[in-house]
Amino acid sequence: MKNNTADKIVWAKKDLLGLEYLSREEIEVILYTAQSFKEVTTRQIKKVPALRGKTVVNLFYEPSTRTRASFELAAKRLSADVINIEVEASSVKKGETLIDTGRNIEALKIDIIVVRHNCSGAPNILARSVKSSVVNAGDGWHEHPTQALLDMFTLKSKLGHIEGLRVSIIGDIAHSRVARSNIWGMTKLVAEVTVCAPPMLIPEGIEKMGVKVTSDLDEALKNTDAINVLRMQFERDTQKAFPTKLEYFKQYGITDQRLKKCKKDIVVMHPGPINRGIEMSSDVADGANSVILEQVTNGIAVRMAVLYLVAHAKREIVA
Amino acid sequence: MKNNTADKIVWAKKDLLGLEYLSREEIEVILYTAQSFKEVTTRQIKKVPALRGKTVVNLFYEPSTRTRASFELAAKRLSADVINIEVEASSVKKGETLIDTGRNIEALKIDIIVVRHNCSGAPNILARSVKSSVVNAGDGWHEHPTQALLDMFTLKSKLGHIEGLRVSIIGDIAHSRVARSNIWGMTKLVAEVTVCAPPMLIPEGIEKMGVKVTSDLDEALKNTDAINVLRMQFERDTQKAFPTKLEYFKQYGITDQRLKKCKKDIVVMHPGPINRGIEMSSDVADGANSVILEQVTNGIAVRMAVLYLVAHAKREIVA
Amino acid sequence: MKNNTADKIVWAKKDLLGLEYLSREEIEVILYTAQSFKEVTTRQIKKVPALRGKTVVNLFYEPSTRTRASFELAAKRLSADVINIEVEASSVKKGETLIDTGRNIEALKIDIIVVRHNCSGAPNILARSVKSSVVNAGDGWHEHPTQALLDMFTLKSKLGHIEGLRVSIIGDIAHSRVARSNIWGMTKLVAEVTVCAPPMLIPEGIEKMGVKVTSDLDEALKNTDAINVLRMQFERDTQKAFPTKLEYFKQYGITDQRLKKCKKDIVVMHPGPINRGIEMSSDVADGANSVILEQVTNGIAVRMAVLYLVAHAKREIVA
Repeated sequence: MKNNTADKIVWAKKDLLGLEYLSREEIEVILYTAQSFKEVTTRQIKKVPALRGKTVVNLFYEPSTRTRASFELAAKRLSADVINIEVEASSVKKGETLIDTGRNIEALKIDIIVVRHNCSGAPNILARSVKSSVVNAGDGWHEHPTQALLDMFTLKSKLGHIEGLRVSIIGDIAHSRVARSNIWGMTKLVAEVTVCAPPMLIPEGIEKMGVKVTSDLDEALKNTDAINVLRMQFERDTQKAFPTKLEYFKQYGITDQRLKKCKKDIVVMHPGPINRGIEMSSDVADGANSVILEQVTNGIAVRMAVLYLVAHAKREIVA
Repeated sequence: MKNNTADKIVWAKKDLLGLEYLSREEIEVILYTAQSFKEVTTRQIKKVPALRGKTVVNLFYEPSTRTRASFELAAKRLSADVINIEVEASSVKKGETLIDTGRNIEALKIDIIVVRHNCSGAPNILARSVKSSVVNAGDGWHEHPTQALLDMFTLKSKLGHIEGLRVSIIGDIAHSRVARSNIWGMTKLVAEVTVCAPPMLIPEGIEKMGVKVTSDLDEALKNTDAINVLRMQFERDTQKAFPTKLEYFKQYGITDQRLKKCKKDIVVMHPGPINRGIEMSSDVADGANSVILEQVTNGIAVRMAVLYLVAHAKREIVA
Repeated sequence: MKNNTADKIVWAKKDLLGLEYLSREEIEVILYTAQSFKEVTTRQIKKVPALRGKTVVNLFYEPSTRTRASFELAAKRLSADVINIEVEASSVKKGETLIDTGRNIEALKIDIIVVRHNCSGAPNILARSVKSSVVNAGDGWHEHPTQALLDMFTLKSKLGHIEGLRVSIIGDIAHSRVARSNIWGMTKLVAEVTVCAPPMLIPEGIEKMGVKVTSDLDEALKNTDAINVLRMQFERDTQKAFPTKLEYFKQYGITDQRLKKCKKDIVVMHPGPINRGIEMSSDVADGANSVILEQVTNGIAVRMAVLYLVAHAKREIVA
């Protein structure tokens, strides 16, 4: 990776709330720092003492196995102590406010709060209320910044750079925090982003974020360097606004046939878990262009970088 | 803190079951030991090797986030390994007896069992059945000794001493293990304790514990050095014995107006989580007299002290 | 323990899926390795750095407190990092396939996956899909190999050897993975195994596994060196195929009276949790012949050995 400037940049933010709030340079510092942590994950002893004696709380208001496990591993590989707190939606009503919860966690002298919340903006409120660092692990339909960072890290690892790439994001754009964080991040790193979805799953005014919009999959695939295929969350479609699974696969499912018409080295990403036979065929998911499992691996390195940076905010980074 | 005798005292109890069972000197040893652990929590690396290689089990028969997290952090900052075991009430019926559970945990060579149980006296039964140390993290309406210890620690930190202080405990005395432990502890340390609640929330015969009893808040506030405001657990009031929330706040809620008539330096405590606008107004909760978040911070130091002492029972304490 | 050959054997398997798949020599290597770890559990500091920097995931598709806690402790005493993942049966349907889950965990660079699953054979599928080591913590009615290994370890500790011993397994043979793993293991170590149960709880063709079969408890107890009494899982008897509890205890419950007619040093085992007054009386459970709590203690040492061996597969064991 070429990063002529990243190692001279000082990271000054105590929180990571979304890619909307970061400069291109800050995003590059995270990717650059992640690169050095990636090496750690390949060692026999996958552990460094960078956060020894620090405490990370995973505060999850939505159930999550994958993201929680990834953050927990990242923290443990930095030698931090980790406490998991799962708050059920039902207990929120009778419980204290988010700010009170945050202040109580701060009073426990926690260094970093990793928070997932069903309300957009909850991590921002929390971050303003506490001196502890706050890392957004997904909030409502707003942002999921570490997912987008690991997508960008993986893309850069594969293709060497992000600037000038054509990236298409395919699927339920309207309800996807992954899409929003990807759009913020990829456009800041000067990729050309296209979003592609059935018309009812494209949010109004999305083109103001600097992306091309289409409902035609062939158009989205043509000449693109990478696709980021979103998970269709049929289980959340209480209003029955979605097409049927079969219909969706027919019109928007990524298949080997469709891939054959694309650039030979097209990079296929998916935040997981995959609905095989809906968003993509198994041939594609397990095929040569798929980097889906590399994304999972890179997620650890990226989250180690984020935890490390926010814990050491305002210090010079010597990487 | 002045503790002329505490550092010569030998802690000899393998368990901490309740403040009823401790002497004044033993309580002072805990507070004195907590003082030295408090310093640890202010360091960059908040960790000491005091319990390295020891194992602590959090055995919780009632759901709890705050107390469990506080004990887990305390244990981890002492470098102990921690295992969380949550037993759902529903699985108790088909499961083994408490004594069998205890013996099985003991057979795992666990050093300390931190137990929360909905039945009063359960920790006592457990402690008699096992060689492992048992720490009561709240049992029924009986005791919550570490909460009262952290209340006393906080009060002593603020006012320099506890002997001779006037302390009023306000709220649902009848169903509060926090109240009972506070009464035992504060009276042993020779504070003058008043309890104040609506008549139906004062348990019969409570004055035999050596406290003054009143249902008049103004009387409870007059000339008192500190108040400990209990959480009103409306969600548990299945018999509708409680006053309405509005009515309660009007008669017993602590407001800035009421505080103005009190001693200027009155210390306001609450075990959390606060029902803002019920037990106290937000002005008071976040005001200059409130030590509520300090209580949370001190909880770690006090629990570190308790875990340390029971693990090293019968050895001379060199603090 | 005499093990003239075990210390020269090289452990070469990346997984532990069942005792069916192990040779006598491999079983002896595990028991021999467990012996050296048992000593660790008696130290003041019960911790060795054998798996420092390695990561163990407990992937549990069935709720479990005891086995999960035992594996978690074993991993922590080897200084591994541990992540617990509990998957609810309900979320399996809408979730990803077992193989996708496995590959995702592998992509997190996990060294060992400890898996419990309600489907027989699930750990085998997982093991074929990933490079990480897989340890079966119980799958359907198939196997529970570490339970049988700790049973054999305990028996050998008590009686000095297993070859030539008479061992009776008593209870619900039909639905017991503990029974199946015990039969595979004990017969490979050349014990004479008898299974004893009410006729409807004896699976057809079980005698092909090399065991004697009887429904007469007196016959099963006569001249036997050890009994392994299975838990009757009445809560799972949805088809009401079981006898009543009272009837079962009368015909198959182990009592002091029955024990008096047995060999004086008969070893009484039970995988726990005991239904007192159903499978055995309290006199027996807590009596001089019972090694039930020693089994729990030995479970840690055996699981430490298994985790250690699979993590170091294909290396020469220097014990």
